[in-house]
Amino acid sequence: MSDPFPKVATRRMEELVTELGRVGEQQPGGGLIRFAYDDAWRAAGALVARWMTEVGLQVRTDAVGNVFGRLPGTESASTVLTGSHIDTVRFGGRYDGALGILTGLAAIEELIRTCGRPRRSLELVALCEEESSRFAADFFGSRAMLGTIGPDEPDTLRDADGVTLAAAMRRVGLDPAAIGSARRTDVEAFVELHIEQGRVLYDEGTQIGVVSAITGLRWLDVTVTGRADHAGATPMDLRLDAMQGAAEMTQAATALAEAEGRPAVATCGMWQVHPGGVNIVPERVTFSIDLRHPGEATLDRLAGRIRQECERIATRRGLEVTLDDTKAVAPAPMDEPLQKVIAEAAEGQGVSARPMPSGAGHDSQMWAPHVPTAMIFVPSVEGRSHCPEEYTPAEDCAVGASVLAGTLRDIAY
Amino acid sequence: MSDPFPKVATRRMEELVTELGRVGEQQPGGGLIRFAYDDAWRAAGALVARWMTEVGLQVRTDAVGNVFGRLPGTESASTVLTGSHIDTVRFGGRYDGALGILTGLAAIEELIRTCGRPRRSLELVALCEEESSRFAADFFGSRAMLGTIGPDEPDTLRDADGVTLAAAMRRVGLDPAAIGSARRTDVEAFVELHIEQGRVLYDEGTQIGVVSAITGLRWLDVTVTGRADHAGATPMDLRLDAMQGAAEMTQAATALAEAEGRPAVATCGMWQVHPGGVNIVPERVTFSIDLRHPGEATLDRLAGRIRQECERIATRRGLEVTLDDTKAVAPAPMDEPLQKVIAEAAEGQGVSARPMPSGAGHDSQMWAPHVPTAMIFVPSVEGRSHCPEEYTPAEDCAVGASVLAGTLRDIAY
Repeated sequence: MSDPFPKVATRRMEELVTELGRVGEQQPGGGLIRFAYDDAWRAAGALVARWMTEVGLQVRTDAVGNVFGRLPGTESASTVLTGSHIDTVRFGGRYDGALGILTGLAAIEELIRTCGRPRRSLELVALCEEESSRFAADFFGSRAMLGTIGPDEPDTLRDADGVTLAAAMRRVGLDPAAIGSARRTDVEAFVELHIEQGRVLYDEGTQIGVVSAITGLRWLDVTVTGRADHAGATPMDLRLDAMQGAAEMTQAATALAEAEGRPAVATCGMWQVHPGGVNIVPERVTFSIDLRHPGEATLDRLAGRIRQECERIATRRGLEVTLDDTKAVAPAPMDEPLQKVIAEAAEGQGVSARPMPSGAGHDSQMWAPHVPTAMIFVPSVEGRSHCPEEYTPAEDCAVGASVLAGTLRDIAY
Repeated sequence: MSDPFPKVATRRMEELVTELGRVGEQQPGGGLIRFAYDDAWRAAGALVARWMTEVGLQVRTDAVGNVFGRLPGTESASTVLTGSHIDTVRFGGRYDGALGILTGLAAIEELIRTCGRPRRSLELVALCEEESSRFAADFFGSRAMLGTIGPDEPDTLRDADGVTLAAAMRRVGLDPAAIGSARRTDVEAFVELHIEQGRVLYDEGTQIGVVSAITGLRWLDVTVTGRADHAGATPMDLRLDAMQGAAEMTQAATALAEAEGRPAVATCGMWQVHPGGVNIVPERVTFSIDLRHPGEATLDRLAGRIRQECERIATRRGLEVTLDDTKAVAPAPMDEPLQKVIAEAAEGQGVSARPMPSGAGHDSQMWAPHVPTAMIFVPSVEGRSHCPEEYTPAEDCAVGASVLAGTLRDIAY
C-alpha cells in the first residue's frame, strides 16, 4: 500500500452533493422526492452513471435498476462493493443514501488517481430502492442482489395510486421476469457510508462513527381500555381512566430503556385517545412502542419486561391492556475485521472516530448475514434527517470519503 | 302541614318519562335531539303545557319560550319555582333536564290532590335552553328570567348552519326584542331535581343526593414542546421527548386531585401528539385539564399547584410548557336551609339520602347567587349520561318526585 493516505477534496464533495441534490427537488429548500422508478429517480441514476463513466468505471444497470460502476481487479474477480441507495423519502434531504454513492465515487476516483488499479475488483453501486416510500419493498435493490425477493412481490406490491411494482419497472424499461439475474455471488465485502441521522457525533464533535451493529427492532401497539365517565360527576376513586394507565405505561417503557443504558431506546410516538372530549374521562388509548437494541437477547428481555409492566399497571388500575407485535427486525452485527480497518483508516487520516451502533435501518443489514459488511457514519447537523433540513457540511463529507477511500484501499489493493 | 308525606306513583313517572321521551327521539334507542327552537323542542313544550293544564295549573310562555304552570298561593304572590330544562344534547337521553320538569309536574299534581292550594304560589317551569347544543347560549332560559342576557346575544349567537338565535326565536313566534319582559323578581326559592350523571348514588345504592354546591371549574390547555428526533438514532439521554413530559404532568395533575380527596376531580381528556409517527420522538403535545371543586379557594390552590408541577417537570426535562386558561366557572353553594328541608323530606319518606356536590353544571348555578336554591339528585344507572343509554328506573324517579313534593310542601304550604 502507498502512503500518504488518500484525501478527497471538500470542493469535490460540495460539487457532487449540490448537483445530485437538485434531482427531484420539489422547490428550493422544499425537500426531494425520488421514488423508485419515477422520473427523478431515473434522472438521478443517469447522472450517477455519467459520473461513473467520467471517472473511468465500467457502467452497467441490472434487472431492478441498480446502477454499477466497476473497476476490474488485476488479480481477482471477487468484488469489494461500496455505495448506498439513490431513492429518498417524501420531502427528504440530499444526504440520506445519496452520500454513500457520492463518497464512494469520490473515493474510487481518488484511489485511481493515487493507486491505479486494485488487486480485487472495486465496484460502486447506486441501489435502486431502500426507503419503501413508494412501494413497501424495503431494501429492494440489496435484496435483488442477494436473491431474496419473493416471486410475488413485483405483482402484489402497489403504490398509493394502485400501480404495481412490476408495471413501474416496465415503464422504465426493466423486465420484472428478469429479477433473478440481478443476483450476485462475487461480492466479498460491502462497505456503506451513511449520515448518522442522530446527534451523537454532532453533539460530541466526533468526525467518524464506526458502526458496530445495526439495531434490532420491535414495534408494539398497546391498547388500554377503561371506562368513559363524566369528568365532573365521577369522583377520582371511581374512575377507570385509560389515559392515566397509558401515561404510567409509557413512562415504565422508557424507564426500562433508560435503565438498560445506551444503545437501548424506546419511543412512544403515536397516540390515539378516545373519545377525546375535554370533559370526558378517557375510555380507550392506543399508543405505539418502538423498541431498539443491537442485541437480540436484550431486545427480547426488554420487550418481555415492558409487557409485564404494562400488565401489572393495568391490573392494579382495573384496566384492560393488549400488546400487539406489529414488526420485528433482527439486529445485524457488522464485520469486526472491517470495523478495525475503518478505525485504522480514520486514525491514519488523523480523524476522530468512535464505535457506535446504528439505531436506524440500512442496506447493510441485508448484506451482513451474507458478506463481511461494515458502515461508516458521518455527522448529521442537529441529528436532522428525513427532512429538507438534513445537512452534513462538505468538510465532513470529504473526511468520510477519505476514510472510505483508505478503507477500500486496505481491502482491495 | 298534613301527613302522611306525599307519594308519587311509580306508574305515573313511567308514563310521563315514556311519553316525553318519544319527542325528538331519532330512532328507537337512538337518542334524542331537542335543540332550542327546533320542531321537537316546540312539540315537547306543547306536551308539557297540555299536562300542566290537565293538572290544573295556569299555563303561560314567556318571551324566550320558557313554559310555566302556576298554582297561585292563597297568602302570598311570592313564587316557589321548580323545574329544569327541556332541551337535550345531540343524541341525548330521556332524563337529563326532562326529569326535573316531570317530577315537578307529578309532585305538584300530588300536592294539589292531598293538600290543595299552597300559601305561597307554586310554579313549574320547562326552561327553554341549558345545554348549548345549538347555540352557545348556556342557561338561556334561566338567564332570561334573571335578566342577565346580553343585548347582543340574540343577533350574534349562531347555530352550525349560521342561523342566529334571534331568527330561530322568530321562527317559533317569539320576539327577541321582548326578552327583557322574561325577567322575574317574584321568585323566592328554586328547587331543581336532576339525574346525578355520575355513579356515586348508583354504586352506593343511595336513593337521593342533596346537593351541597355545584362545582367550580377551570379548563386549562397544556402545551409541552420538546424536539422531534429519530427514534432509532437518538439515545434516550439526548432526547427532549414532549410526550414523556406530558405523561408525567398528567399524572401529577390527577395525583393532586386524588390527594385533595373527594370532591376534587381532574381530567385530561383531549390529547394531540405531534408529529405522531411510530419512529419519531414526539416534538409537541397538547392536552386539556378539566379541574373541578365546589370551593373557589381550593380550586385556585389546586390550579396553582398543577401549574407549578408542570413547570417543575418541564424545567427538569429541558422542555417548554405553557398553560392557557380556557374557561373558568365559579362554584355555586346551595342554600343550607333548603338542603335541610330536602334531607328532612327524604327522612320523612324513609328514603336514604346523602349530601354531595354536583360535579356537572346546572340551571341552579345561575339561580344560586340570586335566590335560595337547592337541588335533588336521583341515581344514574352506571353513571351514564348525555347518551341514549341514560337511565333512571321509574321507582327511583318516583322516590325523587315524592321527596320533591315533600320539599315543596314544606316551603310553599
